[in-house]
Amino acid sequence: MCRWAAYLGSPIYLEDVICRPGHSLVRQSQGATRCHTPVNADGFGLAWYGERPEPGLYRDVMPAWSDSNLRSLTATLRSHLFLAHVRASTGSATSRNNCHPFVVGRWSFMHNGQFGGYEDYRRHAEALIPDDLYCHRKGATDSEALFLMALGEGLETDPAAAMAAATAKFEALARQRGSAPHVRLTAAFSDGQRLYALRYASDEHAPSLFHRWSDTRGGRAVVSEPLESDEPGWQEIPAQSFCVFEGAEVAINPFRPDRQRTAA
Amino acid sequence: MCRWAAYLGSPIYLEDVICRPGHSLVRQSQGATRCHTPVNADGFGLAWYGERPEPGLYRDVMPAWSDSNLRSLTATLRSHLFLAHVRASTGSATSRNNCHPFVVGRWSFMHNGQFGGYEDYRRHAEALIPDDLYCHRKGATDSEALFLMALGEGLETDPAAAMAAATAKFEALARQRGSAPHVRLTAAFSDGQRLYALRYASDEHAPSLFHRWSDTRGGRAVVSEPLESDEPGWQEIPAQSFCVFEGAEVAINPFRPDRQRTAA
Amino acid sequence: MCRWAAYLGSPIYLEDVICRPGHSLVRQSQGATRCHTPVNADGFGLAWYGERPEPGLYRDVMPAWSDSNLRSLTATLRSHLFLAHVRASTGSATSRNNCHPFVVGRWSFMHNGQFGGYEDYRRHAEALIPDDLYCHRKGATDSEALFLMALGEGLETDPAAAMAAATAKFEALARQRGSAPHVRLTAAFSDGQRLYALRYASDEHAPSLFHRWSDTRGGRAVVSEPLESDEPGWQEIPAQSFCVFEGAEVAINPFRPDRQRTAA
Amino acid sequence: MCRWAAYLGSPIYLEDVICRPGHSLVRQSQGATRCHTPVNADGFGLAWYGERPEPGLYRDVMPAWSDSNLRSLTATLRSHLFLAHVRASTGSATSRNNCHPFVVGRWSFMHNGQFGGYEDYRRHAEALIPDDLYCHRKGATDSEALFLMALGEGLETDPAAAMAAATAKFEALARQRGSAPHVRLTAAFSDGQRLYALRYASDEHAPSLFHRWSDTRGGRAVVSEPLESDEPGWQEIPAQSFCVFEGAEVAINPFRPDRQRTAA
Repeated sequence: MCRWAAYLGSPIYLEDVICRPGHSLVRQSQGATRCHTPVNADGFGLAWYGERPEPGLYRDVMPAWSDSNLRSLTATLRSHLFLAHVRASTGSATSRNNCHPFVVGRWSFMHNGQFGGYEDYRRHAEALIPDDLYCHRKGATDSEALFLMALGEGLETDPAAAMAAATAKFEALARQRGSAPHVRLTAAFSDGQRLYALRYASDEHAPSLFHRWSDTRGGRAVVSEPLESDEPGWQEIPAQSFCVFEGAEVAINPFRPDRQRTAA
Repeated sequence: MCRWAAYLGSPIYLEDVICRPGHSLVRQSQGATRCHTPVNADGFGLAWYGERPEPGLYRDVMPAWSDSNLRSLTATLRSHLFLAHVRASTGSATSRNNCHPFVVGRWSFMHNGQFGGYEDYRRHAEALIPDDLYCHRKGATDSEALFLMALGEGLETDPAAAMAAATAKFEALARQRGSAPHVRLTAAFSDGQRLYALRYASDEHAPSLFHRWSDTRGGRAVVSEPLESDEPGWQEIPAQSFCVFEGAEVAINPFRPDRQRTAA
Repeated sequence: MCRWAAYLGSPIYLEDVICRPGHSLVRQSQGATRCHTPVNADGFGLAWYGERPEPGLYRDVMPAWSDSNLRSLTATLRSHLFLAHVRASTGSATSRNNCHPFVVGRWSFMHNGQFGGYEDYRRHAEALIPDDLYCHRKGATDSEALFLMALGEGLETDPAAAMAAATAKFEALARQRGSAPHVRLTAAFSDGQRLYALRYASDEHAPSLFHRWSDTRGGRAVVSEPLESDEPGWQEIPAQSFCVFEGAEVAINPFRPDRQRTAA
Repeated sequence: MCRWAAYLGSPIYLEDVICRPGHSLVRQSQGATRCHTPVNADGFGLAWYGERPEPGLYRDVMPAWSDSNLRSLTATLRSHLFLAHVRASTGSATSRNNCHPFVVGRWSFMHNGQFGGYEDYRRHAEALIPDDLYCHRKGATDSEALFLMALGEGLETDPAAAMAAATAKFEALARQRGSAPHVRLTAAFSDGQRLYALRYASDEHAPSLFHRWSDTRGGRAVVSEPLESDEPGWQEIPAQSFCVFEGAEVAINPFRPDRQRTAA
């Protein structure tokens, strides 16, 4: 399990989400409260959109709390749209290529959760990555494979359908070759315009997911855990949901790859 | 605060102390139970004695639990005398030069504790390092400064007196220029023959320190926290003690740098 | 291209090959003379055999010349059989998982060379890794894939035939989907008993490979470049050769995966 | 010796100086042509000014050419004023705290050169750092000590005089306690408004220093080596010079700390 936070709105310094709040993402790297692994210190990363269509990407293998570069970057960079992640490995190595977010072209992607027994069907998951995207397979995580599969399923044209198709395939593999829990996931991703998020599980235990609009900032945070423990206005996103955030607007729709699977 | 473990006895694989026990040092890096900072993930290190008088030294900035090199080294190396440390920074950067143990010639040294307000008297502490040892000042920690001061006070000829003199000078600086708590410390160090340890505080809160002889291994572990939570035979070392471990023998004597100071 | 050195014989300190000679492997990391890339600074690694059947493994992403751990380890560790490598990436990332040697069980493996256009047929190469070895696929290099394919072809029972079969498959992929030069390679590998090496190219430009017995040390070095520039006794291994080193003995036989391929 | 490049002018992507030119700073990290150490791969760093008075700072220990974060940051960040450095250690460890630039408040500083026998008078140099700046002493380089001494000499009010005073003190120490060459240096530093540079040596061998205005970019590069090997317009800055760059203007004045010293 990991923790992540994303932001969409008027440009803010990245530290306003990542470092400064009382339960900021960096604090969550030392003491997350809504997941089984309070310590998320197997690397971190951030992707932020600026003047170019492609996001900037900074990832490293240290704990987020001890990285001097992260402190300086988040105090210097302002962005209207960014994704940040602190990692707790479920098995694959602590290496930059296994750190989230993953970036392909203008798309960025990050993930939290479990695919039970993934190591037993990793090669089958990788086989579902299209040829032209395989060069972007740099690490060994389930997360990167899911992202590349979703790109292959048409993430650029229909993000919800593509994520559902990719998740359904992963769930099918987990049922055939893996183990329970088959799928527990949250993810956030972006093309630089909209911010997408989803929350889904094949059982009753979808990882936590919240969002909150801030009038002060003129923007919205979408997070694994609220950034302040006693702040009003944090809304929990229901399990089995797919969210589109654009400007101040929110669209939350059902996300049911499991039904898609049975229909297939 | 940090956690550490040392061993003296018949040669064993380092993993038998560092990785394999139920509350091994690597486990303590994620969840220590007898100190305020359960996570000790700001680097780690180990020094081990083999065929040469100088110990081997391996230190890195990742959390101990995620370092593949550490796993392989501790599964491969056998030693009759080694020191291992997991670090929780009290301020100075996460860098290899700030990781314990520190090594000068055949001496190795590691430390856990606090010198209150150290940053306010760092330069005064460094000024007490002798000229001929200053080239060994690589980092910015209080720990390394204490070690080099102790070497300057004659660690090689009278370890207890040298550590008392160095600690007394540190305590005087902390009282003049720092803040409470002035000194809370445990330390372990070795010349490759004997293993030394001390436990001391200028207040009532000396950090924890234990030792245990194992007939199975034919050796003794000296540790911040017992390596198994429910194992009999762990003996707590009293505060204000200086210990010498040689073969199977233990000598525990009072350690009172505070009295030395007032006598000076 | 990369540079490597291996040793088999009476136990010596690793530094006697890796650091101390005038043209040691560490020197070659800054200024190799017999390849197109004089700087080999994209990580390094070493595998050494000791008391256990599985070798120790130490790899990191810094240049070999600046790693303090490497200096200490090679000054401390003695071994009768070890492999060491300095890397110049031909494309894949600088990460520990892409550093040589690779280790599976008691086997270690390292490689130097090129498979032309590998990125275009990486997934096809990975598809040839057997299911039960796929969990050892940690990085993205051609080298690791070659090693795992060779294990799948029976490296443990007939090393020469297994390496020929794996190389032939790689060469076929390079001819079908890659580009010239199809194969240029040297490799060294070991099961902890024997040291194997091979030199092969599909064109006229096989990378350099030498060996030399030292009476002083009672052992043999097998290297990309002689460890002293003006030392007598270095013998060049001919292209298209497979070598077995055991004790003081050397067996050099033709290595013709290209013929095997056409026969298949 | 190291290599560095700075820029002042209309905002450009950092890659336009650091990565893209034919003899960019990253190329110089692999093959510098105007200094004794062609390989400058002991870490790198960059400081860039944006919306806040304090610059952003990114430093790491890998070679500049292999750092994926550096590629992404320089392709994403635009700045009107930045400093970048690739390091070849003259002795101190490869660690982030020893990488340039150094930053204190809104000031950034980087350096290339030698102080002969520095290790023999390091503690004397450090003793010249004022108390209130000592907390910024993080590493062990001569460069950081020079910067902190210059700040103590009044860098904020009279940069030329402060650098001359600091350099004179360093040169005096080198003559008393060090060895020849006593001082060979170039440096660049900034308060976020102006860019300063100097070139000086106590002998005939001041390191190289060039600058060039680009009408295309509307800005000026100040560099150890021209960014394109055959590009017209690169002007060499004479030895014993102190330069102030502001907007499109250049002021180059004599820099003679040696005379200041004898006058003192």
